[in-house]
Amino acid sequence: MDQSDKKIKIGLIGLGTVGSGVVKVLRDFSEIEIKKIAVKNINKKRDIDNLDMSILTTDPFEIVNDPEIDIVVEVIGGVSPAYELLTTAINNGKHIVTANKELLAKKGEPLFKLGKEKNVAILYEAAIAGGIPIIMPIKTTLAGNKINKIEAILNGTTNYILSKMEKDGVSYETVLKEAQELGYAETDPTGDVEGYDAAYKIATLATIALNKRVDINKVYREGITKISANDMKFAKELGYKIKLIAMAKLFEGDKVDVRVHPMLVSVKDCLASINGVTNSVVLEGFPVGRVMMAGPGAGEFPTASSVVGDILAISKSLGSNKLLPMMECHHETNAIQIDIKNTVNKYYISITAANTPGVIGRLGEIFGRHNISLASVLQKGIDKENTAEIVVITELSNENNLNDAVSELKNTNCIVKINNIIRVME
Amino acid sequence: MDQSDKKIKIGLIGLGTVGSGVVKVLRDFSEIEIKKIAVKNINKKRDIDNLDMSILTTDPFEIVNDPEIDIVVEVIGGVSPAYELLTTAINNGKHIVTANKELLAKKGEPLFKLGKEKNVAILYEAAIAGGIPIIMPIKTTLAGNKINKIEAILNGTTNYILSKMEKDGVSYETVLKEAQELGYAETDPTGDVEGYDAAYKIATLATIALNKRVDINKVYREGITKISANDMKFAKELGYKIKLIAMAKLFEGDKVDVRVHPMLVSVKDCLASINGVTNSVVLEGFPVGRVMMAGPGAGEFPTASSVVGDILAISKSLGSNKLLPMMECHHETNAIQIDIKNTVNKYYISITAANTPGVIGRLGEIFGRHNISLASVLQKGIDKENTAEIVVITELSNENNLNDAVSELKNTNCIVKINNIIRVME
Repeated sequence: MDQSDKKIKIGLIGLGTVGSGVVKVLRDFSEIEIKKIAVKNINKKRDIDNLDMSILTTDPFEIVNDPEIDIVVEVIGGVSPAYELLTTAINNGKHIVTANKELLAKKGEPLFKLGKEKNVAILYEAAIAGGIPIIMPIKTTLAGNKINKIEAILNGTTNYILSKMEKDGVSYETVLKEAQELGYAETDPTGDVEGYDAAYKIATLATIALNKRVDINKVYREGITKISANDMKFAKELGYKIKLIAMAKLFEGDKVDVRVHPMLVSVKDCLASINGVTNSVVLEGFPVGRVMMAGPGAGEFPTASSVVGDILAISKSLGSNKLLPMMECHHETNAIQIDIKNTVNKYYISITAANTPGVIGRLGEIFGRHNISLASVLQKGIDKENTAEIVVITELSNENNLNDAVSELKNTNCIVKINNIIRVME
Repeated sequence: MDQSDKKIKIGLIGLGTVGSGVVKVLRDFSEIEIKKIAVKNINKKRDIDNLDMSILTTDPFEIVNDPEIDIVVEVIGGVSPAYELLTTAINNGKHIVTANKELLAKKGEPLFKLGKEKNVAILYEAAIAGGIPIIMPIKTTLAGNKINKIEAILNGTTNYILSKMEKDGVSYETVLKEAQELGYAETDPTGDVEGYDAAYKIATLATIALNKRVDINKVYREGITKISANDMKFAKELGYKIKLIAMAKLFEGDKVDVRVHPMLVSVKDCLASINGVTNSVVLEGFPVGRVMMAGPGAGEFPTASSVVGDILAISKSLGSNKLLPMMECHHETNAIQIDIKNTVNKYYISITAANTPGVIGRLGEIFGRHNISLASVLQKGIDKENTAEIVVITELSNENNLNDAVSELKNTNCIVKINNIIRVME
């Protein structure tokens, strides 16, 4: 019997926001049937019209072991039990579509190895930048490129918080509270605001784009909780916005520099205009040059768009005698990841100094001794404690030298406090 | 013999800018061999190191009739002889990669029909928006979407001219001359500045995205030659930039509105920040929402990136027993295209009026009688001829009503001249 004549059968694990979106969108595709859906609580009230309750199960293993199911779609998130479920599914010859960035970052290597061994596709467009097409373009249209740099905004929650802080001139805490009330930030916001979510995503995105497996444990990560309303204000005066940037680049030829941290981004850079919960990915490579994608990074329907795109890609190729190129996932080489201490960056440094004559000269002298040139210096009014706010932006400097200079500054009499250090995008 | 064990053989028709880029980039792909290249003049000096002159031919039919060639890559442009060459190649069972937007717009229908009949792929990522991945994402990641709107900047030359006019406050003629000297505009710039190039591209892009064949002859087209330095200045004051926008949208359910013309674009819209020769495509659909892509729209290497991506996609799937989904091109339905007269738009209208009392009132009265509400009115200083420049921006209005109102204005005593009418993006 010709495979193309029968319906493709899907097993869906998870029926939260994304899962519900997938169910709704798949209704327009009569060639695809959702055979089973695994949920935690069968009786939970759900915002899905005419949901066939008979296909719900509380046992996800029923799905991964169902011989009739062709594609397992996993949208529960987290490493366990997703990992056990997907390895069982792959061992049973099922293709996988997942939106689980944490799983891919932490268990991508064994999953893709097993997938290759069993000749099944593992697609995950929804796991990185939600509705924005990025994984598939890298594997197809851009396949002739050597990509050397990715700069991206991959977390909508933090981008919302930073955009709002900048627009309204208010503190991180104020905006976080508001974002939590609006449902843009979770009650425990750690995963977003400390950069874990963006780090998971850039680890997987860099693995695909740079063609080397990136170890999530070696991805440098710094969140946005220390960004102050003052930092926002100074950045603006200097022609920058502050964004949580996920970044990966080739370094000294074959090494790889992958990290997530806040950055000052010039208002002239297209990433500076990405506001609110929008995500964006900028890729640089040869021969293409620089391309940018932007769009909704999360949400029921944008994420479902990517999940359904992956399901359709697999379903249309079922019955083909070879795995489609866009479904391959070769990156057996491990990346040599460099430590943040060995990177070279421009820095924004906000300093509170005593209002003594020659303090700027003293700063310049200390930075100079550590091989750090200053690109701009901004001194703000003197407050009632007779201190001045000084903001400097350095030229490209070695992070080790920067740390040494800052240590020395901390022990310098006229320096009251180093308020913040934020890297600056070139 | 397993097809995957032998080299894929390419025949390249055309060795201009794009062709040279393709030759250079393909050198990194040992699995692909360029067997023959058709050129006009074999002895022409070319900027390609170690080019094997023995593979050059002046007879492109040698390529399309060569039984060893798997993929024909056409980068000569124009309808003839490209059409005859590609139909011969398809009839001979060869897959096609082309960067030829004019050919696709004018002869896409018979080409894709023949391709389907002969079960060969016809890929053309490079024909629309150069290096930006757009066709493949629509066919794969976004395949679950119903796209209802495309707004795009698809011509680098005109975007360069408009960006430069805006930045430097100079006339169209001045910038065109400079662009011609820099090689950004051709000696006969008609194809770019009158919007033909953008119209070819949007016709094909809309056909794929909206899933209905768009007839290039019914695409409304208006160029940028009438945009004045004054228009730029007024637009800026009102919070807009002027861009040549290629646009396609669903209208009243199943009809399609496809056109190319200058538009005032709010500075808050992401398309307003696309400057110089960069191209950008914004897609709106369900479930994805709004996604944007931007990048280099032309040039040797960006275009070669897309051509090579298509070659790799075909070459990796050769030997598969079915055509990849991303290679299908179904759009047997013809779009019902609406006439520009039946569209609804906001308008910018620049008027020179006599400096008589009540002229603004008179304008308002005439527009009102034609069911046109004004969103803003800007009156500029009175010049020595005792006339005033008045700029109005209307609310959404029927184009027919607008034309009637403008005819009446032209016959109104106090109106000296209608300087320009430009549509405004919502």
